[in-house]
Amino acid sequence: MSITAFLGALRPLVEPRTIVTDPDRIAPWLTDWRGRWTGVSEALLEPGSTEEVAAIVRTAEGHGIGLVPQGGNSSMVGGATPPADGRAVLLSLRRMSRILDISERHVVAEAGVTLHALHEAAEEAGARFPLDLGARGSATLGGLAATNAGGVQVLRFGTMRAQLLGLQAVLSGGLVHDGTAGLKKDNRGPSVDQLLVGAEGTLGIITALRLRLVPGRVRRTVAWIGVASPQAALELLGEIELATDRIEAFELIPDSSLQRVLRHIPMTRAPLATAHPWHVLVEAVEPEGDAQGAELLADLLAVAAGRGLVAGATIAQSEEQGHQLWRLRHSISEAERADGPAAQHDISLPIARVPAFLLDDARTIEQRFPGTEASGYGHLGDGNVHFHVRAPEGSGRDWADSAQGKAVSALVHDLVTAAGGSISAEHGIGQMKREELLRTAEPARLQFLRAVKRAMDPHGIFNPGKLID
Amino acid sequence: MSITAFLGALRPLVEPRTIVTDPDRIAPWLTDWRGRWTGVSEALLEPGSTEEVAAIVRTAEGHGIGLVPQGGNSSMVGGATPPADGRAVLLSLRRMSRILDISERHVVAEAGVTLHALHEAAEEAGARFPLDLGARGSATLGGLAATNAGGVQVLRFGTMRAQLLGLQAVLSGGLVHDGTAGLKKDNRGPSVDQLLVGAEGTLGIITALRLRLVPGRVRRTVAWIGVASPQAALELLGEIELATDRIEAFELIPDSSLQRVLRHIPMTRAPLATAHPWHVLVEAVEPEGDAQGAELLADLLAVAAGRGLVAGATIAQSEEQGHQLWRLRHSISEAERADGPAAQHDISLPIARVPAFLLDDARTIEQRFPGTEASGYGHLGDGNVHFHVRAPEGSGRDWADSAQGKAVSALVHDLVTAAGGSISAEHGIGQMKREELLRTAEPARLQFLRAVKRAMDPHGIFNPGKLID
Repeated sequence: MSITAFLGALRPLVEPRTIVTDPDRIAPWLTDWRGRWTGVSEALLEPGSTEEVAAIVRTAEGHGIGLVPQGGNSSMVGGATPPADGRAVLLSLRRMSRILDISERHVVAEAGVTLHALHEAAEEAGARFPLDLGARGSATLGGLAATNAGGVQVLRFGTMRAQLLGLQAVLSGGLVHDGTAGLKKDNRGPSVDQLLVGAEGTLGIITALRLRLVPGRVRRTVAWIGVASPQAALELLGEIELATDRIEAFELIPDSSLQRVLRHIPMTRAPLATAHPWHVLVEAVEPEGDAQGAELLADLLAVAAGRGLVAGATIAQSEEQGHQLWRLRHSISEAERADGPAAQHDISLPIARVPAFLLDDARTIEQRFPGTEASGYGHLGDGNVHFHVRAPEGSGRDWADSAQGKAVSALVHDLVTAAGGSISAEHGIGQMKREELLRTAEPARLQFLRAVKRAMDPHGIFNPGKLID
Repeated sequence: MSITAFLGALRPLVEPRTIVTDPDRIAPWLTDWRGRWTGVSEALLEPGSTEEVAAIVRTAEGHGIGLVPQGGNSSMVGGATPPADGRAVLLSLRRMSRILDISERHVVAEAGVTLHALHEAAEEAGARFPLDLGARGSATLGGLAATNAGGVQVLRFGTMRAQLLGLQAVLSGGLVHDGTAGLKKDNRGPSVDQLLVGAEGTLGIITALRLRLVPGRVRRTVAWIGVASPQAALELLGEIELATDRIEAFELIPDSSLQRVLRHIPMTRAPLATAHPWHVLVEAVEPEGDAQGAELLADLLAVAAGRGLVAGATIAQSEEQGHQLWRLRHSISEAERADGPAAQHDISLPIARVPAFLLDDARTIEQRFPGTEASGYGHLGDGNVHFHVRAPEGSGRDWADSAQGKAVSALVHDLVTAAGGSISAEHGIGQMKREELLRTAEPARLQFLRAVKRAMDPHGIFNPGKLID
């Protein structure tokens, strides 16, 4: 149970550089990037190979030492921060950052490759990897798979799970599972690859991945649309989805969010001359040769306008205009922060329930907590909204962590659960949502999570204190 | 431990019709459709609702009685046949056959809906369900998901796993998990839905499913192509896949298989005037309006012919001609049976390894077992071939089950494993491949399968004797 004994046993099994004990080198990785959780780790393990990870797992099990897998440390829920009790050490996959094989259709890469590095390698191969998110410079493929990451392109291509063709991982006992050969069909029982997706490193350590790539060299068409209501946006989405399979983003934005962006973010301007209560940002992506996207979208919007679904619209006439429209969407979070404290929620709902949630349930929250303002924006096509409840005027910066802030979040989660939704759409459970998971999840889910955790991690060493015990 | 006591406890909890004890009604379900396995079941349970399934699971756990879930009883590996020891009963899902919700984009259906019924319902909704296989009239959606079924359209749309948007299932303790609301994003830990796919009913009972549908009203273009080698076929596939995402089938057929079809199946004729050692059947599917498929395919084939990849080709000029080409492919199995006994193997390989396997490994087998003839045909695009080793002349009908036949199969599985492939691509493990799984699987896989089985089925009641204990 002592870290010293553990490191002593490990030393003969790995390269010297794999074991880091210099506190100055460890310190930056003990706190999550938003500064909300800080833990203790006497050592930082930086293995250079799957064999080293296997040796680390075996030794850690023998000594009862927890391993906290870490990629870019970009978790939103404290999922990669060590516990405070000192019984675990950081296991960084960042040194394992080689792209092992790449073609126009797939890539095999080590877990420590960053999303940005993958995007670059894919482009060089004439392809693209159809998943993107803000932390691309630091987030690693292993972490993205372990958390089943999403992003703005989920509408067309799905989450990380849908990109995965196979995983290599170290399981309990240091046994290595290697699914990176990428069998398209393999029915030897259930899939361990699939079980590790979304498990947040609590069932094993992902060391390499085989991922699909999609055709590169594409042309993007971006449109901004004013609509009367979330319901109108939803109907518009239905129309568009039936007409084309090339829509990669469909983002819903309330006017209050747009107005905050225009107020707080320099060099922004309203995309439409007229005022609308709700807005939609839509992006169509097609092979460079085809170039029907702009026309198709224009036709679709004209038809939808005739049916009363579209109140106003503009299609970007250049890449630069497209970027400006996207900048409005990507600035919402920053603008909201500039406008005062809020409790933020990463939730999902059955898509048909989103409009009622954004209207009726938001009003329920505001009535229950006078002075708050509740609104949601985000990936309507995925049923995934970033749902913010703004603090009453005069609240402190840490209002979200106050008793009232927590009561607000509990109500949001109760309403989401009642609507058949999820209290974590994209970000996972980590440390942050463990209690809320226990409070809101149905018995079947908790039984499943606990049974699988005990079965796959009998020594309790994989990312202790996250998700579930 | 007595079936009588179990049924006595169950009777007050379910409708009278749910418990069938008439041996004449039970008998047809005790033997698999190919007549290879027969088991014992004193009762046949036919629940009408998920609540009844939950009551059955709870009662069975209390009495230590196994439950053998059964849909269409169309398993190829004895996966739905009860064990012979009388400690289990059949649990038929066939009565739960309602389609609960359907639109152009998705369907929610009970587990007992047949694949054929789903195809019809989808067509009525202006959509289609992109998975098809020979047993469509009897195979049920629950069984298709539990075995992660494939078929000929996997190339474009993936296996059953890729169609699944959410499952409802009864887990140990009779707890009901319901994922049929179909959240597109839900990161509350790993997915129990995904774990049940391919688990062959050994971890829980699937009671309902939400599945995606794809646009209906399509136009199909079928082509038959003569090629010089499997490698040429593979290169052709690569070219086509980079040019279009609308290829739904790419089937490789050795000339020996085609010749057997022409010899044994009435009303068939060679599609090409010239002789070729290998053939490819390819199908492109596109929206009815587009109708570029035939031209696109013709262009692609002309380019490929210029590069020496295509030795001869014909594109069906009518639906009837397309059917005739497909009939050649679908008749291979029947023609092979008519031509004498063979050991058949449902295997998959990393796609790049398929040509070497069909040539070099096939020769290895023929040399090791003089008089045999080894060849493979099937879903080249999925790395999934039906690999048949024909018995030496004069062998008995049951040669595949003889010592030599089994030795041949063991060698096939060894070669597949050495090549990084799977001994079960489509059909699962069931009873038939349990020993071969134990013999060939890597330790990590066996540890995973056993750990999850014990965790999810602590009383050992879910489909005993299948897959793994």
